[in-house]
Amino acid sequence: MSNKMWGGRFQSGPDALMEEINASIDFDKRLWAQDIRGSLAHLSMLEAQGIVGTADAKAISDGLEAVRGEIEGGTFTFSRALEDIHMNVESRLAAIAGPAAGRLHTARSRNDQVATDFRLWVRDTIDELDGQLADLMTALAEKALAFHDAVMPGFTHLQSAQPVTFGHHLLAYVEMLGRDRGRFADARRRLNESPLGAAALAGTSFPIDRRATAAALGFDRPTANSIDSVSDRDFVLEALAAAAIGAMHLSRFAEEIVIWTTPQFAFVALSDKFTTGSSIMPQKRNPDAAELVRAKAGRVIGALVALLVVMKGLPLAYAKDMQEDKEQAFDALQTLSLATAAMAGMVRDLRPDTARMKTAAGAGYATATDLADWLVRELGLPFREAHHATGRLVGMASAKGDAPLESLTLAEMREVEPRIHEGVYAVLGVENSVRSRTSYGGTAPDNVKAQAERWLKALRS
Amino acid sequence: MSNKMWGGRFQSGPDALMEEINASIDFDKRLWAQDIRGSLAHLSMLEAQGIVGTADAKAISDGLEAVRGEIEGGTFTFSRALEDIHMNVESRLAAIAGPAAGRLHTARSRNDQVATDFRLWVRDTIDELDGQLADLMTALAEKALAFHDAVMPGFTHLQSAQPVTFGHHLLAYVEMLGRDRGRFADARRRLNESPLGAAALAGTSFPIDRRATAAALGFDRPTANSIDSVSDRDFVLEALAAAAIGAMHLSRFAEEIVIWTTPQFAFVALSDKFTTGSSIMPQKRNPDAAELVRAKAGRVIGALVALLVVMKGLPLAYAKDMQEDKEQAFDALQTLSLATAAMAGMVRDLRPDTARMKTAAGAGYATATDLADWLVRELGLPFREAHHATGRLVGMASAKGDAPLESLTLAEMREVEPRIHEGVYAVLGVENSVRSRTSYGGTAPDNVKAQAERWLKALRS
Amino acid sequence: MSNKMWGGRFQSGPDALMEEINASIDFDKRLWAQDIRGSLAHLSMLEAQGIVGTADAKAISDGLEAVRGEIEGGTFTFSRALEDIHMNVESRLAAIAGPAAGRLHTARSRNDQVATDFRLWVRDTIDELDGQLADLMTALAEKALAFHDAVMPGFTHLQSAQPVTFGHHLLAYVEMLGRDRGRFADARRRLNESPLGAAALAGTSFPIDRRATAAALGFDRPTANSIDSVSDRDFVLEALAAAAIGAMHLSRFAEEIVIWTTPQFAFVALSDKFTTGSSIMPQKRNPDAAELVRAKAGRVIGALVALLVVMKGLPLAYAKDMQEDKEQAFDALQTLSLATAAMAGMVRDLRPDTARMKTAAGAGYATATDLADWLVRELGLPFREAHHATGRLVGMASAKGDAPLESLTLAEMREVEPRIHEGVYAVLGVENSVRSRTSYGGTAPDNVKAQAERWLKALRS
Amino acid sequence: MSNKMWGGRFQSGPDALMEEINASIDFDKRLWAQDIRGSLAHLSMLEAQGIVGTADAKAISDGLEAVRGEIEGGTFTFSRALEDIHMNVESRLAAIAGPAAGRLHTARSRNDQVATDFRLWVRDTIDELDGQLADLMTALAEKALAFHDAVMPGFTHLQSAQPVTFGHHLLAYVEMLGRDRGRFADARRRLNESPLGAAALAGTSFPIDRRATAAALGFDRPTANSIDSVSDRDFVLEALAAAAIGAMHLSRFAEEIVIWTTPQFAFVALSDKFTTGSSIMPQKRNPDAAELVRAKAGRVIGALVALLVVMKGLPLAYAKDMQEDKEQAFDALQTLSLATAAMAGMVRDLRPDTARMKTAAGAGYATATDLADWLVRELGLPFREAHHATGRLVGMASAKGDAPLESLTLAEMREVEPRIHEGVYAVLGVENSVRSRTSYGGTAPDNVKAQAERWLKALRS
Repeated sequence: MSNKMWGGRFQSGPDALMEEINASIDFDKRLWAQDIRGSLAHLSMLEAQGIVGTADAKAISDGLEAVRGEIEGGTFTFSRALEDIHMNVESRLAAIAGPAAGRLHTARSRNDQVATDFRLWVRDTIDELDGQLADLMTALAEKALAFHDAVMPGFTHLQSAQPVTFGHHLLAYVEMLGRDRGRFADARRRLNESPLGAAALAGTSFPIDRRATAAALGFDRPTANSIDSVSDRDFVLEALAAAAIGAMHLSRFAEEIVIWTTPQFAFVALSDKFTTGSSIMPQKRNPDAAELVRAKAGRVIGALVALLVVMKGLPLAYAKDMQEDKEQAFDALQTLSLATAAMAGMVRDLRPDTARMKTAAGAGYATATDLADWLVRELGLPFREAHHATGRLVGMASAKGDAPLESLTLAEMREVEPRIHEGVYAVLGVENSVRSRTSYGGTAPDNVKAQAERWLKALRS
Repeated sequence: MSNKMWGGRFQSGPDALMEEINASIDFDKRLWAQDIRGSLAHLSMLEAQGIVGTADAKAISDGLEAVRGEIEGGTFTFSRALEDIHMNVESRLAAIAGPAAGRLHTARSRNDQVATDFRLWVRDTIDELDGQLADLMTALAEKALAFHDAVMPGFTHLQSAQPVTFGHHLLAYVEMLGRDRGRFADARRRLNESPLGAAALAGTSFPIDRRATAAALGFDRPTANSIDSVSDRDFVLEALAAAAIGAMHLSRFAEEIVIWTTPQFAFVALSDKFTTGSSIMPQKRNPDAAELVRAKAGRVIGALVALLVVMKGLPLAYAKDMQEDKEQAFDALQTLSLATAAMAGMVRDLRPDTARMKTAAGAGYATATDLADWLVRELGLPFREAHHATGRLVGMASAKGDAPLESLTLAEMREVEPRIHEGVYAVLGVENSVRSRTSYGGTAPDNVKAQAERWLKALRS
Repeated sequence: MSNKMWGGRFQSGPDALMEEINASIDFDKRLWAQDIRGSLAHLSMLEAQGIVGTADAKAISDGLEAVRGEIEGGTFTFSRALEDIHMNVESRLAAIAGPAAGRLHTARSRNDQVATDFRLWVRDTIDELDGQLADLMTALAEKALAFHDAVMPGFTHLQSAQPVTFGHHLLAYVEMLGRDRGRFADARRRLNESPLGAAALAGTSFPIDRRATAAALGFDRPTANSIDSVSDRDFVLEALAAAAIGAMHLSRFAEEIVIWTTPQFAFVALSDKFTTGSSIMPQKRNPDAAELVRAKAGRVIGALVALLVVMKGLPLAYAKDMQEDKEQAFDALQTLSLATAAMAGMVRDLRPDTARMKTAAGAGYATATDLADWLVRELGLPFREAHHATGRLVGMASAKGDAPLESLTLAEMREVEPRIHEGVYAVLGVENSVRSRTSYGGTAPDNVKAQAERWLKALRS
Repeated sequence: MSNKMWGGRFQSGPDALMEEINASIDFDKRLWAQDIRGSLAHLSMLEAQGIVGTADAKAISDGLEAVRGEIEGGTFTFSRALEDIHMNVESRLAAIAGPAAGRLHTARSRNDQVATDFRLWVRDTIDELDGQLADLMTALAEKALAFHDAVMPGFTHLQSAQPVTFGHHLLAYVEMLGRDRGRFADARRRLNESPLGAAALAGTSFPIDRRATAAALGFDRPTANSIDSVSDRDFVLEALAAAAIGAMHLSRFAEEIVIWTTPQFAFVALSDKFTTGSSIMPQKRNPDAAELVRAKAGRVIGALVALLVVMKGLPLAYAKDMQEDKEQAFDALQTLSLATAAMAGMVRDLRPDTARMKTAAGAGYATATDLADWLVRELGLPFREAHHATGRLVGMASAKGDAPLESLTLAEMREVEPRIHEGVYAVLGVENSVRSRTSYGGTAPDNVKAQAERWLKALRS
């Protein structure tokens, strides 16, 4: 066995191998703050319940604060031989606080400890993500407000279908991100129960007060079943599922930015803050940041799949397999955070070419639907007949060198449908088209403005 | 090109190919009831708003009811040439109701129509699943109540760790399923907005009343952005994510059933209702249903992945790619439904061998933790010292032919720790052990009984 | 429990449930031809080895042919109560052939039977896919030959980077599909071992000749380990992995078709055979088939994930979980087949707008690299210096109203680099640019022509 | 925006954000050796072709060796501002070798450079994995040889079905791993083409010799299409797919180890090298390493999914999305390497309890099939009749307190089938059973011994 990947590290035998596969300290040290916080809450409760004496409690508490200081100060030595963050902290605490330290682990086990620490981390991270998503929504809504009446083609099948406004298009993403925040909020609410006190898996015979530790850690209540408490990773999976859907949303907008910044579309431009260029092709601006945001969806979806596979078919209660939850969650949630921040930066940086978008919106008889609707609404034609008449009128305009519908004279139009009157011109032209879409949620600029303002108000509060 | 898979069907050229890849009627006909329901709601609104006259509305309404009758009666002919359920219904309606039928499509498009129909279907299915999950929870809680004090080994790493009760173990799944229902309820709440009236993507110039159609279809409100309305499939993805987590839960219990029904464990038995046997090996009972439930997690996870991949990087608004949402959702949610029903059947069928489980619970010094805790609690030993003393006592018992801890005399115990007194025997033995775990959520039989009763009460309401 | 999804079918109790979850006949009947073929091979061997007498063998053989006739003739009644295709055929055979039929199952079990049948099916399907992929490659190579010198922009980051030819771009997909065929061929070679004779899992004590059955069924050899023979599903997974990569390739070209058929790009057009239109927007051609091909990648990837999840952590040998392999394989491989056929149709249907592509290729100073390379090659400038000089020349042309590089006079160019001579014009202009890329694999039209011809020759053989 | 996850790093604006999302040096520095190797091959060719002069070539070559020395010596400073490994090396080279360094990039681009480097890395890693898989196969085959006749229950549905030998069971994994090596070998063969010289995407006008660089880097040939060369990541995907299937295999054996080391099974024991214990429960040995190997399948499958999602729908040629390939490949292949090494360690450490396995093999009338087969073979009974008779005999033995079949007297047996003679006892009993399974691939100890020896010989060569 050549084993270059490990630099021959395993030739010394199973010990190196076992440490390599088993030790989690390289990644779970990220939980140090949550670990100390959980220990302090547990300690206060043990003292309040008379399970640990005041002097011991003081020694442990001081010790934990000392450990915190060392980690924050960068002087703490993390040891792989001590396997994980819990044992690293506990071992150092013992060195600082002496035998009293041993009392901290009363009525607790590593199983409920890691479940508590990781819930706290996921909760904290959801709170951060919530702020970032809100920031991106704000950037979008501000841009939407600024361009609430800038006409662009509304696409279906990436073909121009009907005119919409740029602001309206951006607000579609605000809606998506609003649902993302809702999913994270629901996940947060559901995870916000304290597993502390479930001990190894069966609960404990010590007279502990789980409601007190739950409250101290900001949990709504203690979990109701000790076996579930240590074998559940729903709280990670649900966050990852919300992240996967959110990353998918970002990938859609990223794709649009990539397409819109091609010379062929040229609907928007990004500054060189978010693009990379070519020293010899000045027009070339590669939308690297957008491409990477698009790609990151793969990473987050992969993490969700990974953890679902890990948990599939796993007997209760704790199994070591569950240690795989952390790296996936760290990577996926941090990836979403980065992608969200990058997207907020791009949105603020984005400069739409409104003239070009408006021209594109008018091409291809994108207001034909407006004409058909007018025939229905004003002249009472059945929908399918109106469609037929519109088809003939478009053909007529098309035969005039792809002239726009509004260039047809009234006389010409009346050849197709004699009842057509002057009023028809009010719905032709892309500005008229978007102005007419006043149904709730429609693209009429006043609607868009109101929606953007509604969101901005909600986001500020 | 041999093309046997298609029986030479494509040799006639592109038409057969396009129909094969494009037509969705083979699967979306399942939406027929939602489609008619949505059309009736739209029609009532059009009439109320004066967009369609009363006579026409009556003709259309009667026509839709006639179509419903034909479908229910099995006399409706679904046509692939008409592509999807919407065109199939619309085309038949035209034949029945005449030209008036054309007015139904006013201020509507296939894009908002399909979004509405499919939301209704997902919502209906979530409601069914909710009932089924509640039924499985009831089956589990009833079994848990019946066996709230039946001692079994509590496992970590599939190694016996501490005694728990069978009821306690079952209630862990009730907790999981309760969260599953919560996730589905949240998904339902979030999806419960009406996209009807978004039209193709831009809204409409007709004076429609989206709040009215929303209310008529049981939606809480109309969606707020028309582009999002037709390009969003979050409501499917969120349901699939909830289903994937739920299927994972079922796979865990299924795995336990497979392991527990081995002759080596023999903790539980299933009747031949849920097993297949061998005509010549009477003891052999293959837990086929449990294995299939375990496997179904793969199917549901695969569906979630499939739709996430479809949606990744998809520009707004509607794209034909989104047609792939239906088969995945139909298959995955139906799979979860079947697996849930099968699991409920197995839970009711399951007969635990309480004697065997209790014996297993007592093996391997599974109450050593209880002894250590007693030393801490009663004698005030620090946790780590108590651990050390316990290790010596276990060694002592082990040396006596793996005798149980409770067989050690007081004198023997005092060799290790002189302060040990008679009280210690109250925590030794698996019955005593589980009885002592009275912390909230712990495995003490009284706790388990109370939790089972709490759940049953909640489930009945 | 409402249970509408199942129409109350389960209210009759566990039997309906078990049949619903357990029976595979609804999908595995597709294996009927392979099942009969495998049985006939097994029977011949049993007869040759003297395990079954001639008269019995004749009766069974005639019976199997009769069953085949019934299935082909559509008169065979498939029964869910008989669970799967094997029992359906066996049961009907018994009815036809009498007690002798019982001898067919000698030295065989359902476990090796299903493994054999399914290997045959996957192998047959790979052969079909191979033909279809070759057909698509032929379509691409023919188009590439026809357009081997049609200049288009070569993209990186979807930004025009350097001119290439349309033929060259198409041949990139021929390379990908060639690798796809290679992967399927490798999968086929690896799966081509006969599990027949592994019996339930341990082999058999009958004097069977596994080499004979292997040869009769076109397998290269019998499998070497009976436990592996019945517990292995690598042959499905490997085919699904190859399919997932292949579907990904198709999704890339599909995405390009979607982008290229936008009015903004308008590089290619599809006829209405593969698009859907709008009765009132004549220019609108929705590339539905391309969108669906793009989306199908999700479906195939989902199937691969599903089966990987099923197999993860599954103890040997056969487990019922493995029954989930079939629907995934049927659906995924058929999906790839359909997508491949649709893509071949689209490629043949595709009409490139060569003038438009050539114009686009020349925009944005896409030949700046050619100029820089010329400065290095002809004047000996170091690469980075040449880059700098080119940047200045581009700036100069750009300042002249985005004029092309070839519009700069020699005098103007010499302001930047005095040694530039007439020869430089030979590399400017997109035609010159592509002609100069004569390195192996480069886009020079002669290269492209040669590669297209090489492929067409290989594909014909 | 709180943005604690990034420590406020982004408050300074877009630059920090862009660097964070764009820079790949943190992970792609792992490619440094491949990068220098590729550059040296490119340089030699440039010199041989007269594109770079001898003096410059010497300066560059010396410079590259100096860079190599700095990296190996740990004195090289990697810079995020320089984005990736290629620019880091190039920039340092320029500092060392002066202006001549600029000539190295002639006829090359970062696009073909990264494709070359990464192919080399994947190829090197496949070679390492091949060695590790061979080592694990050797460990398994050696154990199989040692226990070629140790009887254990052969399981289907995790129920004892027929006796097999422990060696036979282990060799099933050798077969799987042999296929894994085959898949990696095929992937290696397919990837072993040199993209160097494809330049940015179009090839080059320099008179390069791609065959020479291909040969120098150990590639079989240059790639045939320059666009494909820079946009292809099949070589990563195929390796990840092979890794996912391989990791799945390991997860199956890991699951078996977890089950077999329970006290209930106790078929095998692992030493404390690969388990973690409890200081107070001496029997408890948590099979942590096996659990982690089982879980790692999730990680590898997740990586495969992630990259498939990234590549789905990506237009040609290079896009920045593809930068996501590296971390997934690094992590997944390293994970498989670690899991393989850990499994090899566990296999060598594993001590089977042969007595216990043999006893389990005899329980549950696992030799009933042998009896039925004997009735067919010796007495000529049709299979289904033999089955019926066996069922009655088992019932008879079962009625005698679950007595084994071999305890029935000849007289008792003849009540069921009068022709049964003394010979029957030769197939009853688990030793006789396995000895009789002499069909090719069957579990007869002589077979198993021969297969183990065949594998060991092949593995040594």
